[in-house]
Amino acid sequence: MKKISLSFLFAFLFFFSQAQNKDSVMLKKIFSEALSNGKAYTWLYDLTTKVGGRLSGSPQAAQAVEWSKKAMIEAGADSVWLQECTVPHWVRGEKESGIIIQSNGKKQNVPICALGMSIATPKEGITAAIIEVHDFDELKKLGEANVKGKIVFYNHPFDQKFVNTFEAYGEAGKYRYAGPSEAARYGAIASITRSMSSSDNDYPHTGAMGYNDSLPKIPCAAISTNAANLLSRILKADPKTKFFLKQSCQNLDSVKSYNVVGAIKGSEYPDEIVVVGGHLDSWETGKGAHDDGAGVVQSIEVLRLFKALGIRPKRTIRAVAFMNEENGGMGGKKYGELAMTNHEKHIAGLESDAGGFTPKGFGLGMPEEKKLVVKKWAPLFLPYNIYDFDHEGDGADISPLRKQNVPLIGLHVDSQRYFEVHHAWTDNMDNVNRRELLLGAGALASLIYLIQEYGL
Amino acid sequence: MKKISLSFLFAFLFFFSQAQNKDSVMLKKIFSEALSNGKAYTWLYDLTTKVGGRLSGSPQAAQAVEWSKKAMIEAGADSVWLQECTVPHWVRGEKESGIIIQSNGKKQNVPICALGMSIATPKEGITAAIIEVHDFDELKKLGEANVKGKIVFYNHPFDQKFVNTFEAYGEAGKYRYAGPSEAARYGAIASITRSMSSSDNDYPHTGAMGYNDSLPKIPCAAISTNAANLLSRILKADPKTKFFLKQSCQNLDSVKSYNVVGAIKGSEYPDEIVVVGGHLDSWETGKGAHDDGAGVVQSIEVLRLFKALGIRPKRTIRAVAFMNEENGGMGGKKYGELAMTNHEKHIAGLESDAGGFTPKGFGLGMPEEKKLVVKKWAPLFLPYNIYDFDHEGDGADISPLRKQNVPLIGLHVDSQRYFEVHHAWTDNMDNVNRRELLLGAGALASLIYLIQEYGL
Repeated sequence: MKKISLSFLFAFLFFFSQAQNKDSVMLKKIFSEALSNGKAYTWLYDLTTKVGGRLSGSPQAAQAVEWSKKAMIEAGADSVWLQECTVPHWVRGEKESGIIIQSNGKKQNVPICALGMSIATPKEGITAAIIEVHDFDELKKLGEANVKGKIVFYNHPFDQKFVNTFEAYGEAGKYRYAGPSEAARYGAIASITRSMSSSDNDYPHTGAMGYNDSLPKIPCAAISTNAANLLSRILKADPKTKFFLKQSCQNLDSVKSYNVVGAIKGSEYPDEIVVVGGHLDSWETGKGAHDDGAGVVQSIEVLRLFKALGIRPKRTIRAVAFMNEENGGMGGKKYGELAMTNHEKHIAGLESDAGGFTPKGFGLGMPEEKKLVVKKWAPLFLPYNIYDFDHEGDGADISPLRKQNVPLIGLHVDSQRYFEVHHAWTDNMDNVNRRELLLGAGALASLIYLIQEYGL
Repeated sequence: MKKISLSFLFAFLFFFSQAQNKDSVMLKKIFSEALSNGKAYTWLYDLTTKVGGRLSGSPQAAQAVEWSKKAMIEAGADSVWLQECTVPHWVRGEKESGIIIQSNGKKQNVPICALGMSIATPKEGITAAIIEVHDFDELKKLGEANVKGKIVFYNHPFDQKFVNTFEAYGEAGKYRYAGPSEAARYGAIASITRSMSSSDNDYPHTGAMGYNDSLPKIPCAAISTNAANLLSRILKADPKTKFFLKQSCQNLDSVKSYNVVGAIKGSEYPDEIVVVGGHLDSWETGKGAHDDGAGVVQSIEVLRLFKALGIRPKRTIRAVAFMNEENGGMGGKKYGELAMTNHEKHIAGLESDAGGFTPKGFGLGMPEEKKLVVKKWAPLFLPYNIYDFDHEGDGADISPLRKQNVPLIGLHVDSQRYFEVHHAWTDNMDNVNRRELLLGAGALASLIYLIQEYGL
């Protein structure tokens, strides 16, 4: 008996190690193919230079839909289709103007840009006293008595102590998204938010804000971190300083747009779907290279890698270029709705939306027992410097799948440089490294390989 | 008895966890101080812009010695001193010229630069047939019959499949270092080596070569990767293509130079030394920002962090700016010699010479039992994304300490971008990220904190 169980154990270990070995060989093939022949970088170059920035509702966003269809076909998708969704159509208008006006009359132009979804100022602009706050508590303490009729200046810098810059962003982000309405609560007539950036630089970083419908809508803009430091210094020396703000942005009628979906049908379980995506829309201040052209081309590269290596997946693999993550999330919502109404069975959703930087792990949004399945694969990723499977994570576009209890996975990457380019003109190819981008595609394809092979 | 041993066990575990907890608090302080108030980045900016590239023997290298002394004093070193060493003095001379001359007479200038330590061409340059080889085997097969009187063109690209780009460099590097003499063995009159770079770019990457004294010395240069691709295509279509090479580099008489050493004396074991360094000299084609200004300012930052946090080290900590790593290693040799003749007891040597990129681990060059001591500390580093303690490693400047069996440690960093800037004009501050550089300094200071506290 003992002999039999030992034989059984050895047989089991043998098959297990054979499987591990086969998987390890396959992962090596995937990463080697990505690094040697990957197309994600040239696709991203093409998308960012020929189409450029592509805010929802813009002609560029429509071009990007066509572009994605072609790339997915080139990558080898069996089928490519569009999912219609209705998206907001906000336009920036003329270049914004921001001027610091000291009490002695000295004027200084500073780099600002309207926050996404903001209303315009009156045509002639707004000139008003400006008051600096560092957080909502300080704003509340100042109250209507000190705020009414003024411009509120949120100067909440990134906390450099966070190793993961997304944590600093998470903490500071509310002054961009909710700051304008909170300022309006106390009678402010406009607000200026220090750019969400980890470095001192001379360009504003835009991003979405949202109005609280129960409060007056006021125009709001981002100011560069260097100019925020300058304004703060000037206000300390000269509290009677005023600020001039002029912007002509507009919310136009919603328009039709699309998610682009490309699929390779599963050979054994075609109804089980593994979806991977990034978002196609971007702010128009930059070219949307890291945010999130990177995620889109990496997802398309996943299809290409399967085709190039002749891997016929057991389960269906879908790459999705989601529309409208930046200012509405309508594409992600539509994808989730259709998955529900069409009774699709998604066994995993993956997203890359943290920039095309060196991958370091996967955030796992799933029950503990499924996490254990994924973590069992972790040693296979170590040769590729991917070691971190211990954090939560998903992605804005795949998050609507949570309603159906789909395990959600976010690609985690080195975050040190992201908030230097995020939502700013610097989000272009000069700041993307080919190998970093392709390692991310390799990581996604590898995890998807294991999921389609063994299920999750 | 059982009760007693359990109490003992609990007491032990309690003290152990207290120690771990105290260390974890200290590491958090070190990284927070580095990220919030670190000076390494501003120092590097200062060094690279005010002094610039600083090849051994140059006036800039001498300025850099003075600069380092000042920075070490500013950082809070108890004592700062110089270690004299004799270094080669190679100069590039006028800008080099490389021209592809097709058999139909069509000429095309291409980006080249002399390899470090190369001899000059005759004043009028060399024009000769050029023959492409991919490796030494191919060269040998061609032999004197095909090579004599020609220029050998080594076109050995980086193997993109290596995840760690240093492995690709390790494999291709011999065609730069030893290629010229190997070509001379078969009668070549000059050689051109494809730049040691991981990307397709339009600038040459220099670097040291060494002549085999038993063979004729021939002039040799690096050609940009894009131009190497072009030249290869042209040679396929037109094997009678010639190449014009002109360079006026010179090896002048050796000169006196210095390592710069700054120390904080240990309070309990002042005779036990932990040394950390980078090299101060750099190629003059760039500004020596990543290679290796980064390692120098990170080492000086280690001293500053100890001072700023009021940590009085038990053991002596030394930061060293080594001279002449690039073309001779005379500074590292001198440091090792002095350590030997002065009977210094080094308990560890650390080096940062892989660029100021996001740290991912430490390479350990030491016996297994000492590796286990370091690996015991590994969990303390995980919050800082430093996880890899499984590779070998040291550094060229600290390697002479190996004779005295000093445990050697190299900072391992993300290598994806290094060989885009390495030894080229792009090695400047535009390509250094403040947070990545400071995380490296935090990593070094943290490991040194543990070594000075517990020994090794």
